[in-house]
Amino acid sequence: MPKKKKESPSFCEIPLPKGGGAEGDNRDAFYRHRGDFRWKGVKDQPYKTAGNEWSDIMRRVLIGNHGESARFHVRYFEIGPGGRSSLEHHRHEHVVICVRGRGTVRWGKRRRTMDFMDTVYLAPGTVHQLSNPFQEPFGFLCIVNARRDRPRVLGDRPD
Amino acid sequence: MPKKKKESPSFCEIPLPKGGGAEGDNRDAFYRHRGDFRWKGVKDQPYKTAGNEWSDIMRRVLIGNHGESARFHVRYFEIGPGGRSSLEHHRHEHVVICVRGRGTVRWGKRRRTMDFMDTVYLAPGTVHQLSNPFQEPFGFLCIVNARRDRPRVLGDRPD
Repeated sequence: MPKKKKESPSFCEIPLPKGGGAEGDNRDAFYRHRGDFRWKGVKDQPYKTAGNEWSDIMRRVLIGNHGESARFHVRYFEIGPGGRSSLEHHRHEHVVICVRGRGTVRWGKRRRTMDFMDTVYLAPGTVHQLSNPFQEPFGFLCIVNARRDRPRVLGDRPD
Repeated sequence: MPKKKKESPSFCEIPLPKGGGAEGDNRDAFYRHRGDFRWKGVKDQPYKTAGNEWSDIMRRVLIGNHGESARFHVRYFEIGPGGRSSLEHHRHEHVVICVRGRGTVRWGKRRRTMDFMDTVYLAPGTVHQLSNPFQEPFGFLCIVNARRDRPRVLGDRPD
């Protein structure tokens, strides 16, 4: 188990806009896919605002930034070739579904390549990381509880 | 507004297996996509066990049948050409993401064609229906709260 390095705002913890994130009003919404995994009405956001243990990854929040009452958020993340998310753990669960390209998911001591529609459930406390050792972008949906704890980032280990 | 016809076990309400549905034990899991929107370890299930206002639709529960502690379930539904879900409403939210083919989502008085990655948020109480007027299967992810109310099915109206 790698040594714990620090806590940081992370994966799921970009601060919401003022007003509690309720830009909308819990209304029905249709987010048209404009191609290239961009949606009308959905902005690009940084993966995190701190830390340097991650690289070349960004987020698009499909559900969770518009005052939705659902008890979950749905985000799209994309990792460029050579990029990776933080190695981290938290009490909340992750569901990750690959929708673009291929990538690698590491959880505990395991590691698997993810391809289209491969789906991972990460239970509470599991140390995990997503990375892209391939030549094309790796895009995935990541679904989390709306109320969740802050991730704890671990010191990375070289591959 | 169509007349309310009845309540029925529905969309989200297939009874769980004995033992509370906890076939697993809230463990990490990797569901390999075997192609054709079938996953290793994920069974075909009927869309509903009652009613005749729906047709040619089935479900595969990716997350929610294995004792997961996440506050949401992730299901894949597929509607064959000419098929449709019930016209219904409930207090819980739906998030629907098209991943295969094309289909139609109807909510309130609106109706839109859904194509790959188009995403819909259906707020509590919205009357909605998914259907497939096209020649190929229409497959979509549908994410819901783990704890949710029973849908109320409405009398269908001819198109």
